[in-house]
Amino acid sequence: MSDSTGNIGQSWFTEFHTPHAGLTLRITEHLARKQSPYQLVEVMETVEYGTLLTLDGMVMLTDRDEHVYHEMMTHVPMLAHPNPKRVLVVGGGDGGCLREIVKHPSLEKVTQVEIDGDVVDLCKKHFPDVAQAYSNKKVELVIGDAIDYLRRYKGEFDVAIIDGSDPVGPAVGLFERSFFTDVHDALKPDGLMSCQIGSPLYSHERIASTLKHWREVFTEAKAYLAHIPTYPSGVWCLGLASREPGGSSAQPNQVRFRTFSESLRYYTLDIHKGAFALPADLARVAT
Amino acid sequence: MSDSTGNIGQSWFTEFHTPHAGLTLRITEHLARKQSPYQLVEVMETVEYGTLLTLDGMVMLTDRDEHVYHEMMTHVPMLAHPNPKRVLVVGGGDGGCLREIVKHPSLEKVTQVEIDGDVVDLCKKHFPDVAQAYSNKKVELVIGDAIDYLRRYKGEFDVAIIDGSDPVGPAVGLFERSFFTDVHDALKPDGLMSCQIGSPLYSHERIASTLKHWREVFTEAKAYLAHIPTYPSGVWCLGLASREPGGSSAQPNQVRFRTFSESLRYYTLDIHKGAFALPADLARVAT
Repeated sequence: MSDSTGNIGQSWFTEFHTPHAGLTLRITEHLARKQSPYQLVEVMETVEYGTLLTLDGMVMLTDRDEHVYHEMMTHVPMLAHPNPKRVLVVGGGDGGCLREIVKHPSLEKVTQVEIDGDVVDLCKKHFPDVAQAYSNKKVELVIGDAIDYLRRYKGEFDVAIIDGSDPVGPAVGLFERSFFTDVHDALKPDGLMSCQIGSPLYSHERIASTLKHWREVFTEAKAYLAHIPTYPSGVWCLGLASREPGGSSAQPNQVRFRTFSESLRYYTLDIHKGAFALPADLARVAT
Repeated sequence: MSDSTGNIGQSWFTEFHTPHAGLTLRITEHLARKQSPYQLVEVMETVEYGTLLTLDGMVMLTDRDEHVYHEMMTHVPMLAHPNPKRVLVVGGGDGGCLREIVKHPSLEKVTQVEIDGDVVDLCKKHFPDVAQAYSNKKVELVIGDAIDYLRRYKGEFDVAIIDGSDPVGPAVGLFERSFFTDVHDALKPDGLMSCQIGSPLYSHERIASTLKHWREVFTEAKAYLAHIPTYPSGVWCLGLASREPGGSSAQPNQVRFRTFSESLRYYTLDIHKGAFALPADLARVAT
């Protein structure tokens, strides 16, 4: 979630969100550091946020706030969809979206396509709660390139969750228009896609251009926001796109929500609706 | 907005939100540093966020994101109120709330009671846009102790905006129950109060106890959230309290909103409603 990284002293990790601003966290231990074929994967123990995963120096998740991202990426499309049975996750190697997806009683099968097997292995070891759903029988894990994988499927999925990293490194292709066309085509006619986009403070232009691309491909596309303290600026913009009119503004299903609502720490039915309220300056470029 | 502060190298300002996590900003110039009778007031120039005001090392405002705080502190109570003519600001020495308050066509007079005249003077000099309303004829500035001042007034104000710093230093009394009783009594029967509370991540207990106190004094009290990147965790919890039932959940007045909506960069009618949606873990302690 930045373009540079560094350490201040021996026991601090700092992610510079721009060359001029950053979040600095006290660390007590380097738990893992592996250069995979795709990226530098690091796991550290922080005092304030628990265990931290970084890819190429960018914060991907911490124990303390990962639930916000995973609940909002998952339950917004899953509860807006009338009956999600077949789900695709692109990226998401930590397993956090899977943990939330398998809570849905309508689920028959979820396929996750992650390019970097080292991320999966390290998360199973260091984030056992996040990665708990890898042992679930409804979960199929494919280690491979989602861009190639997607082209094989037409009208297959109810929900697609695009949980890639930022558009640097291996995730660059996940922000191109051709990729979103393939996602659109792999969805059933009433299918929904969620996808992380960027910081409403630092990535105004990326948010505007991403939504513009989606609207050329999908029938509807909307941005929504979630409070993720360890991501740049503390709030992150996600998006929801729909093949059919009204799909992205459908009311979340209350009956299904109640089957797992006690497990949730961020998502509520009110948050689902309120998250689509955008600040005036973002609304001017993104609606 | 923290309990400790420090510098990393010569050209960085870091606010440690806890001893283990902080926001670090590159600075190019120290513009002012004055020990007032109440606190250390500093003004610095940052690269990423423009001019920065700190009190005792805690970020109070930056050019880039001050509009979020001031719009949400002001327009939520002012537009929920049926006809705000007489307004009180406690604290708010930078003048940002005043700038927003004077946009309201119904306003007759706003009185601001700020304890520290040095904050006003330094903000007039270094934040001319924020402090612009000090020259407005509807604005009365009182340099003094709001706790003493408030006791003189009963049923006087339509809206009270409590824009103090955090409950350390001179603002400690602004978080005590007796103070809120005085605010309640100084309001007219249909009066509303807004007040900053704390970080939904770091100050869960303060938010819960503050709302509990308010509900013992006011008829209604609700928490709402705003995205302020330079405050700890990037999101801040504000509160709205009402003397009458239904006051804090009143729909914002659309006609009055439209008279100044083009000047706004964060507040919208959708944001007004959406901001009251609290994350599940905060809703469990604060509703």
